[in-house]
Amino acid sequence: MKEYDRHVALDPTDDGWDAELTDGWVVGGGVNGGYQLAVVGHALARALDGKPDPLAVSAHYLSAATPGPARVTTRVLREGRSVATLAADLWQGDEARLTVLATYGDLSGLTDDVRTTATPPDLPPLEDCVPNTVAPAKLRRIAPLMDRFDMRFDPRHVGWAVGEPSGRGELQAWFRLVEDREPDPVSLLMVVDALPPVTFDLGMMGWAPTLELTAHVRASPAPGWLRVRHATRNIAGGLFEEDCEVWDSAGRLVAQGRQLARQPR
Amino acid sequence: MKEYDRHVALDPTDDGWDAELTDGWVVGGGVNGGYQLAVVGHALARALDGKPDPLAVSAHYLSAATPGPARVTTRVLREGRSVATLAADLWQGDEARLTVLATYGDLSGLTDDVRTTATPPDLPPLEDCVPNTVAPAKLRRIAPLMDRFDMRFDPRHVGWAVGEPSGRGELQAWFRLVEDREPDPVSLLMVVDALPPVTFDLGMMGWAPTLELTAHVRASPAPGWLRVRHATRNIAGGLFEEDCEVWDSAGRLVAQGRQLARQPR
Repeated sequence: MKEYDRHVALDPTDDGWDAELTDGWVVGGGVNGGYQLAVVGHALARALDGKPDPLAVSAHYLSAATPGPARVTTRVLREGRSVATLAADLWQGDEARLTVLATYGDLSGLTDDVRTTATPPDLPPLEDCVPNTVAPAKLRRIAPLMDRFDMRFDPRHVGWAVGEPSGRGELQAWFRLVEDREPDPVSLLMVVDALPPVTFDLGMMGWAPTLELTAHVRASPAPGWLRVRHATRNIAGGLFEEDCEVWDSAGRLVAQGRQLARQPR
Repeated sequence: MKEYDRHVALDPTDDGWDAELTDGWVVGGGVNGGYQLAVVGHALARALDGKPDPLAVSAHYLSAATPGPARVTTRVLREGRSVATLAADLWQGDEARLTVLATYGDLSGLTDDVRTTATPPDLPPLEDCVPNTVAPAKLRRIAPLMDRFDMRFDPRHVGWAVGEPSGRGELQAWFRLVEDREPDPVSLLMVVDALPPVTFDLGMMGWAPTLELTAHVRASPAPGWLRVRHATRNIAGGLFEEDCEVWDSAGRLVAQGRQLARQPR
């Protein structure tokens, strides 16, 4: 069993699932929101036969999670022929951490007609990118979640690490889980929130709490490296949107995410 | 009282709100999803004192609504100092039509720091655009909702009306409600789903049922014409994403929407 699988493991209970949020996913003041969403996503994948894949998942974050035990509850709101709509909540004690609506289905049952006009990130080759293992010790201490991944950042978007942000509001990187754990559809719910906040590229080095995150998973990712691109274009009123694209090793746009987050102070 | 206000009017009941979905918002096989979401959004605006504005609203569509009576129920999941998270459902009889998670707050309480890098739609002047009143009679019969708006389409993106779609997957238009009813934050939840499906611009002329729609409302819109832009970049597997931007008359990006919809057949 690989690390990621241990970290998202679920124990069935009478009315849901028990999970353990590990301290390996802490970032800034709490547990990474994408990791929490993946834990919920894996519970939702087991709620119905034949609909194991998230098509659209919307999460609203209620309070900061802490490492330790958590519970996931799920409810089926409607099951149709090809898709189902479900609700889920992640709890720690009496505190709801996140609440989720989800549309699940079977990605393998979709047509293979692909007419994507978006273009993949123009990332330099792996060996020309900057590995997360060279991140400053200070950053790694407040973001142990970086050790869950093998990331190689586009050198054009890592100036923030040395006090020279590009100012464009973009981040992109090669991405995979450690131990070469291959991506699956549910894990993409974590991938869309795994990179540092895109606001780093604007020189705002604080953490950016997510209010809401929605992800569309559009295909089962091929094994291998993912390419992830984050961008923001509307920083205003103390909030910003962060758009995320995840491309797989076969060149398919497998997930799109958008979140609304609080601007770092 | 203007038409829009009559159409989204709510009557309080013991456990929520009664609404009447009018046949004026029918499009294709059902009642427009954005209109339904605005009805829900107005109910959520009244759920809490001092948090009248949607910041992020996620809707998952369960079944096609029909003209007639509907009920809205709302629940407060968490009320914080500046934002609250709520859930809502729209019912007709025993059928849930749509289920919603929402983060509400007070847009007037946000900072006035605006660093938007997105650029507004490059729409030709109003008088050079194509009004919805010249839409083909056949289209207007299956889409009476078009009569709720004064729309002026970018002539570069209306070729579909005469069998010559641009093939780019883009639509943009000047937009306002009839009777010069000025936009408000909640009404933007309708605006992000008001234009024809962006797939028209790709020559797919059927209707595109929404599975999920999330909107971020980022500022109170200034009075006057809105500019609305739709684009899709990932048509695959029988589904497509539709991104929407709404810009107000003061040049502010006031709302961003994204939906996952079924590709027309």
